[in-house]
Amino acid sequence: MKDNLFVDVNDGSCSKKLQVVIPQQNKNADITTGASLIATGKLNIGASGQIELQANKIDILGECIISQGYPFAPRKIYPPEYIRQYLHLRPRTNKFGSLLRIRDALNFEIHNFLHLNGFINIHTPILTSSDCEGAGEVFVVTPNNNELLKDMKRSDISLEEAYFNKKAYLSVSGQLHLEAAAHGLCKVYTFGPTFRAENSKSKHHLSEFYMLEVEMAFTENIEELISFIERLIRTISSEVLNKCSEDIANFEATTENNFMFYASKPYHILNYAEALDVLEKNIDKFKTAYCNKEGPSKEHEMFLVKHCGGPVFIINWPKEMKPFYMKECVNDPVRVSALDLLGPNVGEIVGGSLRENDYQKLKARIPAGNTDLDWYLDLRKFGNVPTAGFGLGFERLIQSLLSINNIRDTIPYPRWAHNCSM
Amino acid sequence: MKDNLFVDVNDGSCSKKLQVVIPQQNKNADITTGASLIATGKLNIGASGQIELQANKIDILGECIISQGYPFAPRKIYPPEYIRQYLHLRPRTNKFGSLLRIRDALNFEIHNFLHLNGFINIHTPILTSSDCEGAGEVFVVTPNNNELLKDMKRSDISLEEAYFNKKAYLSVSGQLHLEAAAHGLCKVYTFGPTFRAENSKSKHHLSEFYMLEVEMAFTENIEELISFIERLIRTISSEVLNKCSEDIANFEATTENNFMFYASKPYHILNYAEALDVLEKNIDKFKTAYCNKEGPSKEHEMFLVKHCGGPVFIINWPKEMKPFYMKECVNDPVRVSALDLLGPNVGEIVGGSLRENDYQKLKARIPAGNTDLDWYLDLRKFGNVPTAGFGLGFERLIQSLLSINNIRDTIPYPRWAHNCSM
Repeated sequence: MKDNLFVDVNDGSCSKKLQVVIPQQNKNADITTGASLIATGKLNIGASGQIELQANKIDILGECIISQGYPFAPRKIYPPEYIRQYLHLRPRTNKFGSLLRIRDALNFEIHNFLHLNGFINIHTPILTSSDCEGAGEVFVVTPNNNELLKDMKRSDISLEEAYFNKKAYLSVSGQLHLEAAAHGLCKVYTFGPTFRAENSKSKHHLSEFYMLEVEMAFTENIEELISFIERLIRTISSEVLNKCSEDIANFEATTENNFMFYASKPYHILNYAEALDVLEKNIDKFKTAYCNKEGPSKEHEMFLVKHCGGPVFIINWPKEMKPFYMKECVNDPVRVSALDLLGPNVGEIVGGSLRENDYQKLKARIPAGNTDLDWYLDLRKFGNVPTAGFGLGFERLIQSLLSINNIRDTIPYPRWAHNCSM
Repeated sequence: MKDNLFVDVNDGSCSKKLQVVIPQQNKNADITTGASLIATGKLNIGASGQIELQANKIDILGECIISQGYPFAPRKIYPPEYIRQYLHLRPRTNKFGSLLRIRDALNFEIHNFLHLNGFINIHTPILTSSDCEGAGEVFVVTPNNNELLKDMKRSDISLEEAYFNKKAYLSVSGQLHLEAAAHGLCKVYTFGPTFRAENSKSKHHLSEFYMLEVEMAFTENIEELISFIERLIRTISSEVLNKCSEDIANFEATTENNFMFYASKPYHILNYAEALDVLEKNIDKFKTAYCNKEGPSKEHEMFLVKHCGGPVFIINWPKEMKPFYMKECVNDPVRVSALDLLGPNVGEIVGGSLRENDYQKLKARIPAGNTDLDWYLDLRKFGNVPTAGFGLGFERLIQSLLSINNIRDTIPYPRWAHNCSM
């Protein structure tokens, strides 16, 4: 303006900006978008009632000259794919700043809810010699130093195994380790990074992602597990909706509805067989055919959520679709007491089950000769306890709550096939 | 006893046991140490004033038969090295149960303190293509699947690099990524696993350990950083001492003193040169010679703590002893504004510094031709801000607070050279 320069300043603590009014005579340097500065002056109530700073002094700490390669021009809206190319500068953009604050709030509310409910946080290991689910999709870890490996190598093992005397993998799940802790401490959880080596371009998969895993001893029926998961998700959704409403407003209009969806809608429970029925009756609405072996596709999952009008638990799954540690249903040995929780925009956000704690049944499901899991069998041999638990995909939950198209925009530094920037 | 059987029951929620009194006529099974059971009955006040359960029904859920290989006999005290051989059963032992609850409490208080002080938790990546500190001690990560790698390989890269199109390492520190976030959000932290591939048998080193890293924008002097670190450690120490006093009592008698030491003693600040002076005056007391290149040894560090009678900050370090990103002292270009915080039992528990934010000086300290850190230089090029931060070794802090001899007994599933059990 003629007499004054108006500058929006943000310190990253919230999405609101402070308007700084600089009289032209006090302007001592070129102020550009992206610059950092110290403004000294007096706080006023501005014309439209908002707080503003009447500055009498401006110190530029760091200029930001677009022509030197800064990728964001003032007042321009960029697609997320563009911003994602500049991971190191992305936290400065408005919308991604909001994402990071919401992610932090969800993270904190999860810890808080579990703490209030008597759960103990156990740091399960990232490096593991148990190739848990037997999938081929694990990363293997070795020192980046051949001299070290040669020094450490014993004659009976390969160079690759020299550091740990065995192959070490990145964890795909902390569950089995968590079960060991649950046998001593009852209510435990772990919340950290897990890894999958998949050649995937999917909008729903990352190579490094965060998972909340919870394990509860003395839990014998799936209804108890269901009601706990529902209470957790309702609580964190409503807490974060209350605390981060301004940041949430930076996302699409459906977003607040998704928080409300998880916080307030009834949660439905369908048997796997009932879910199949619903899908078969609507088979003409789907692009993907229904495939018994792999279970419902994303399209089917999202249909079920719409159809029920709330988050949906699918329970009692065919045994062959689920991992070896899930407990057989009583009087129905072809099914397991497992659950998936489906939500809008992404489908599955939680998977869980009662754990098989019958020593003989569990042993029969572990391939003969596999001694890696002897310790896991020990849990059933000594002071056996019925336990139940679940894993919640943190980025999936964020993606669902905020209607984010690509999961790569839910985490500060996404890693996926062919991408490990910074 | 003649009429009654007395059984101590613990559910892992605290270190106290509930005494269950079972009249001999109600005893329906052999109850052994390590068994899990459901006791039904009436709560009474016992003879010595404690609460006890008068049981009329006992259901054994899981027997625990020592002769089948259970490694812990009743009422025996085992050395930590013995218990450590059974990581999957260790959480059931009294003392390690206490350790896990104290670890959880420290973890929670750290999140809580930082949250109350306006810090945002940023999940910095575990997989990184920046070999941050240029050390040779990193792990490299590849999919455990040659078919996948061959499928993904482009002609210009090696098989090892095929998954990410470059080499990917396990993070040794989230600091540089955290600095990028601090340039958008001001006050940020990360608290997660970090990795070192060292062939070490030391009682103070792990291959996988937890580090709290904090970064604060607009911080220009080291006193501000020091006072924040002091406040953090005082607060979490006194909170956990209050909340976990029964669990802390399971550790040696010096332990409560170590919590008090961090909570209440004055924190001292010594210049690196002053610390040298103290050590040189006491040179006859040390087993290890003083070595200028590597800085004080553990023995020296612990001497300084005793000498000062409180935790000790050593500041203003010779530049060549510290990483490239630490800021030169004003008017003293051979020193950097760095700090180490030393505590009892372990020596260094925190390392921190002001960050070099002079673009030209920083650039001069990165080897020419290394383009991996161009993004890091960008932070100083666009909207440059003075930042400061530190890293706190979580297991070191636990070791120091609880006077634990070996760091392997501070973490649920320790990993070190030649050891990656489970």
